[in-house]
Amino acid sequence: MNKETLAIIGGGDAGMTTASWARRRKPHMNIIVFEKTNLISHAPCGLPYFIEGLFDDEKLLSAYTPEEFEKERNVNIRINHEIIELDLDNRVIYAKNRNNNDIIKLEYDYLAIATGSKPKKIKYDNESRIFYVHHPSLAREVKEKIMNLNNVAIIGGGILGVELAEALVRNGKNVLLIHKNAYLLNKMLDNDMASYINNYVSKDIKLKLNEEVLEITDGGRVIITNNGKYEVDGTIVSIGVEPNTELINDKNMIGETKAIKTDEYMRTSYKDVYAVGDVAESTNIITGMPDWQPFAPVAGKMGFTAGNHIGGVNYRFPGLIGTAITKYGEYFIAKTGLTENEAKKYGFKTISTIIRSNTRARYYPGGKEIIIKLIADENTQKLIGAQIIGQEEVLGRIDLLALAIMKSNTLYDLFYLEHAYMPAISRSWDPVILAARSLLTKF
Amino acid sequence: MNKETLAIIGGGDAGMTTASWARRRKPHMNIIVFEKTNLISHAPCGLPYFIEGLFDDEKLLSAYTPEEFEKERNVNIRINHEIIELDLDNRVIYAKNRNNNDIIKLEYDYLAIATGSKPKKIKYDNESRIFYVHHPSLAREVKEKIMNLNNVAIIGGGILGVELAEALVRNGKNVLLIHKNAYLLNKMLDNDMASYINNYVSKDIKLKLNEEVLEITDGGRVIITNNGKYEVDGTIVSIGVEPNTELINDKNMIGETKAIKTDEYMRTSYKDVYAVGDVAESTNIITGMPDWQPFAPVAGKMGFTAGNHIGGVNYRFPGLIGTAITKYGEYFIAKTGLTENEAKKYGFKTISTIIRSNTRARYYPGGKEIIIKLIADENTQKLIGAQIIGQEEVLGRIDLLALAIMKSNTLYDLFYLEHAYMPAISRSWDPVILAARSLLTKF
Repeated sequence: MNKETLAIIGGGDAGMTTASWARRRKPHMNIIVFEKTNLISHAPCGLPYFIEGLFDDEKLLSAYTPEEFEKERNVNIRINHEIIELDLDNRVIYAKNRNNNDIIKLEYDYLAIATGSKPKKIKYDNESRIFYVHHPSLAREVKEKIMNLNNVAIIGGGILGVELAEALVRNGKNVLLIHKNAYLLNKMLDNDMASYINNYVSKDIKLKLNEEVLEITDGGRVIITNNGKYEVDGTIVSIGVEPNTELINDKNMIGETKAIKTDEYMRTSYKDVYAVGDVAESTNIITGMPDWQPFAPVAGKMGFTAGNHIGGVNYRFPGLIGTAITKYGEYFIAKTGLTENEAKKYGFKTISTIIRSNTRARYYPGGKEIIIKLIADENTQKLIGAQIIGQEEVLGRIDLLALAIMKSNTLYDLFYLEHAYMPAISRSWDPVILAARSLLTKF
Repeated sequence: MNKETLAIIGGGDAGMTTASWARRRKPHMNIIVFEKTNLISHAPCGLPYFIEGLFDDEKLLSAYTPEEFEKERNVNIRINHEIIELDLDNRVIYAKNRNNNDIIKLEYDYLAIATGSKPKKIKYDNESRIFYVHHPSLAREVKEKIMNLNNVAIIGGGILGVELAEALVRNGKNVLLIHKNAYLLNKMLDNDMASYINNYVSKDIKLKLNEEVLEITDGGRVIITNNGKYEVDGTIVSIGVEPNTELINDKNMIGETKAIKTDEYMRTSYKDVYAVGDVAESTNIITGMPDWQPFAPVAGKMGFTAGNHIGGVNYRFPGLIGTAITKYGEYFIAKTGLTENEAKKYGFKTISTIIRSNTRARYYPGGKEIIIKLIADENTQKLIGAQIIGQEEVLGRIDLLALAIMKSNTLYDLFYLEHAYMPAISRSWDPVILAARSLLTKF
């Protein structure tokens, strides 16, 4: 009997996790990963901190070198290989070695598409001083170019834009941030929560909200918006990412989020073909609608699911709710589930509250303000969204609220959580519990 | 029609929360709180930090003064009043004013017993240099006496003993900690987790484990154990607390934990008589057995439940799982659910793992080690216990695990939590997720 072959396109988190778990379940399978760049298991989330200068070794942006992974997991890794054709009907892929232009033809039994996402672009003629911060393989080059500038425009005030703004401010740059929405981080926060962040960020940077970029000229040195014209030394574009589905010819595979539709085992509409990570669409647990969350924890669990399924072990991927965390200065900013805005668009009748509290007992030194917004469905009393801004213990609290949402917990369930308390790091009425109580007792 | 009367015995967290919610639900009820000391809504959890000197205003140990509470909530508060007789059959209590010895007789419609807990004592003749750290009303007096000593023994290595050890070490005292168990914090941790703490604490203090105190003589200056004789300047006894049920004559009210049995609305076996807080027993959600957890968050939610029920609004108290957090030095130490030791005693077939990881991405500065133990029921794959030791983001993670246990979540549920990730405060494979994965994939 011939050995089965698993081909994986893309060596990011999702692809490498698929490889790891398929290997663990099927020790004798052929597993081949094709990666376009020279890095695998790379972490784009670290780029703002590399640019900020918090560490200088860009190798740290990869969890493994290709050699380490090949040796530890017995997986064949082809870096610098680009897929030039994907023939799903005949189960064949063609890859080009970017070093020597050799073409490899590979017949597979299983295929995992893990091509990730790519930055959305703005059109312009000359891009000599226009930058995208997306792939660790270009980390040093982009950093050096940006650090040569003094006045930098950032287009887009989402997570990446805000993180880059901080990185540049800490390096003494003058930052102009242009955002088309009325407030920063509008996919994470409702306006009531975002106002705290807008005020805080405005102290460091020049913030232009509600402005749409019409044109970038002079190689990135002139930006024309619907409200003004700005001259800078260069421009970073961070207006979001989109699924990288260039290889997909069959448009029936693509869902309404523009990513590849998958089922609970990360299978696409082609037999034995899986999609994982930023290129994969799943279902939102709260709305039941297609959803797309291009974040590393999702990618890892999708890879785990696909790798195990290919290996004959079935774990169902439960779907998405949308959890994210970022920071600016001293503040962590986190969300899970739907914003109230989104929830209303999906037809929920929402009830919400904002609690301003503190992270420590009133008498314990060093306590920090923490602001928590909870959003519930008025019909079911289930939690459907949460937002937190605070300086400590934001991460664990947002994860707690994410679990509550994923498991359809109600305000009652959340209020009666037997939470931990000690004066040095919490309150006997934890802010989460206070927020839950505030909503629960409105019914 | 006469107004209904609610009498509450004890002005701690549980009693005052009962008063607040009964008032909110029944604006015209008579509500009278009898409190033996001169403080209400006091926070004994703050005592180690008051002794350490982290704050100097002992008024901060109370959330409200009696005057504030009376004014804000329209509740009649009788401080310095001791109950001398409780006649449950005839719905009458007799209280003595400790200032002038006047006796008040009060007939009630509803009664909430919130008499709290009291420290367990060791017998000795002369207690001139033996101290208990329990009630905020004695905070300054105890602090001054202890601070006059140089060599201090602490008997008991539970939460309070460990917190006091740190408070004294930070004040330059030589601390001898005598603990009868083989390791510190043995109600929170299994031996495998406690060993990290034992080693760390031993650097600062003289630790005597597996030693039972036989006698304390010379007013607290000589301690004789089964293994030695120690001479110190004074002794703090912190060997635990027990429910304060002195007023209860009907032993049928008392459960096997020695606290007052309650149902899901905090009702005792007497009609319209409730027990809340450290004096109340409830049911463990994991084992179904009677349980007692004398911690402030539990007390508050019991008070909420009783106050609402008296006020005609029904929220069921869901029972207990046992969540706690403490700290020593840089380390927070937390647990929820059963220890593996306990779980085995209750007949569970356990499966467990310990993950040592870090709180931040490998390239982000300032990451701290975090150690997580998860314990699951091998038969159901449900999480039944968790322990964490770490320097940041311990609180939220233990609360997350507490929610998972309370809601009977499985390892699958926990692994697939869509957790938040950013390099500055987490890992794309969060340590909690790694621990869940480690157990999930053993099946």
